[in-house]
Amino acid sequence: MTTEHLISEIHKKQSFLCIGLDTDLEKIPPHLLEEEDAIFAFNKAIIDATHHLCVAYKPNTAFYEAYGIKGWKALGKTIAYLNENHPEIFTIADAKRGDIGNTSTRYAKAFFEEFGFDSITIAPYMGKDSVEPFLAFENKHTILLALTSNEGAFDFQTQKVDGVPLYEKVLQTSLTYKNADNLMYVVGATKASYLAEIRKIVPKSFLLVPGVGAQGGSLKEVCHFGMNQDIGLLVNSSRGIIYASKNRDFASQAALNAEALQRQMQEELKSMD
Amino acid sequence: MTTEHLISEIHKKQSFLCIGLDTDLEKIPPHLLEEEDAIFAFNKAIIDATHHLCVAYKPNTAFYEAYGIKGWKALGKTIAYLNENHPEIFTIADAKRGDIGNTSTRYAKAFFEEFGFDSITIAPYMGKDSVEPFLAFENKHTILLALTSNEGAFDFQTQKVDGVPLYEKVLQTSLTYKNADNLMYVVGATKASYLAEIRKIVPKSFLLVPGVGAQGGSLKEVCHFGMNQDIGLLVNSSRGIIYASKNRDFASQAALNAEALQRQMQEELKSMD
Repeated sequence: MTTEHLISEIHKKQSFLCIGLDTDLEKIPPHLLEEEDAIFAFNKAIIDATHHLCVAYKPNTAFYEAYGIKGWKALGKTIAYLNENHPEIFTIADAKRGDIGNTSTRYAKAFFEEFGFDSITIAPYMGKDSVEPFLAFENKHTILLALTSNEGAFDFQTQKVDGVPLYEKVLQTSLTYKNADNLMYVVGATKASYLAEIRKIVPKSFLLVPGVGAQGGSLKEVCHFGMNQDIGLLVNSSRGIIYASKNRDFASQAALNAEALQRQMQEELKSMD
Repeated sequence: MTTEHLISEIHKKQSFLCIGLDTDLEKIPPHLLEEEDAIFAFNKAIIDATHHLCVAYKPNTAFYEAYGIKGWKALGKTIAYLNENHPEIFTIADAKRGDIGNTSTRYAKAFFEEFGFDSITIAPYMGKDSVEPFLAFENKHTILLALTSNEGAFDFQTQKVDGVPLYEKVLQTSLTYKNADNLMYVVGATKASYLAEIRKIVPKSFLLVPGVGAQGGSLKEVCHFGMNQDIGLLVNSSRGIIYASKNRDFASQAALNAEALQRQMQEELKSMD
């Protein structure tokens, strides 16, 4: 998917919501466990109920890998279902991969070509030749971890390198990579005030912002510091939406929570005009 | 597997060789492609021919993921084959994972419990709460990326933080993590002279050293700077061993290359006495 297409979908749906499909058999409604593929059944119901309210879905691959072959099949069915029924929706494999060139190309093929995801999250620690293989794919997007929303972000990401925090160094350096136009960045919402500095370095890039809701980030602050002329934000909510209820009405309850966020986003988009 | 067990195997086999199972259908002998599961057939033949020469096998998960479900099945069969027939061999899932706590636990379960690997490689960028969930598993080992052998390592890993290179900061900080005894580290052999400094910070830890052979690192230098009283080294070779030949004799050729490395290691072990 092109970035232009993503932007036009945001305007059309008045939403820059990304829904995290972190599907956990211990948290989904128990009646679904009778289904042959409970993970996919859950995802399909969530997608059917929320696709008009969001512009992106983000399965975290760890949840699927934890179930072995069964999990990978469910992930494959989920992305196939999305690509077939909602090709206008941006898909993110939250895989946080990163390896040397040869191996990165393998990962890129797996996620971009085999599964057909529009984008993948990548850890920057191994540098240029671990990232560029992903950037080589046209109309595919590489979402680099910059500043994450967890406590451990302070261990290294915020440590000063050449007088700037490591995550700023990551942003700066990544702009020198080949096909840097295909980059987006993960920036945790729990540190919204950092967004102002980040926007100085990557004024045009899309930022994937987790941590709104369950992790305590404020949507208003994120928009205030992070929005650019193209909106430039994908705000993710996972647990706050998909686990809204453990009953048979889980999908409609998820839709209600998604709609609440979408309405707040609509307000933010209005105030931009 | 306990570290003591690994050390005793090194002494018994007079080898600290790790063989990287980076199995690529484009590089394996063409006659194997007729097999129902060519990836596993290749791995099994390599294992059967080399298991007495090495103490560890390290499949890089990217190669398996690239083949989707088929690849994951082959990986599952490979680790099951190893655990059943060669339980004395240390197994490494070269997965380079790393995510927030909740999700890391998922990955840990997938690799340690579902697959039954002894260890996994982890990227440190997300810090403490992305690493500690792996460390919580008894007799399982978390191999943290410190200094990798690729060009991109200079982007961030060697950048100075508080006056020391980031990879040293990673080593120092990781020692403060809960159950830090379960840590090992990836240190590329192409930078053997860095090993002296690294040993000052982590004198007792095992180091997984890729980059000997194909990537140009010298075994002698690695041993000179990196060996400790418990040996403390696992030296990996992938392509140089498994792709020794594309003919029907590929496994015996692989064994010859593995043996050449094992003999060099035996010399190094002797000179320790």
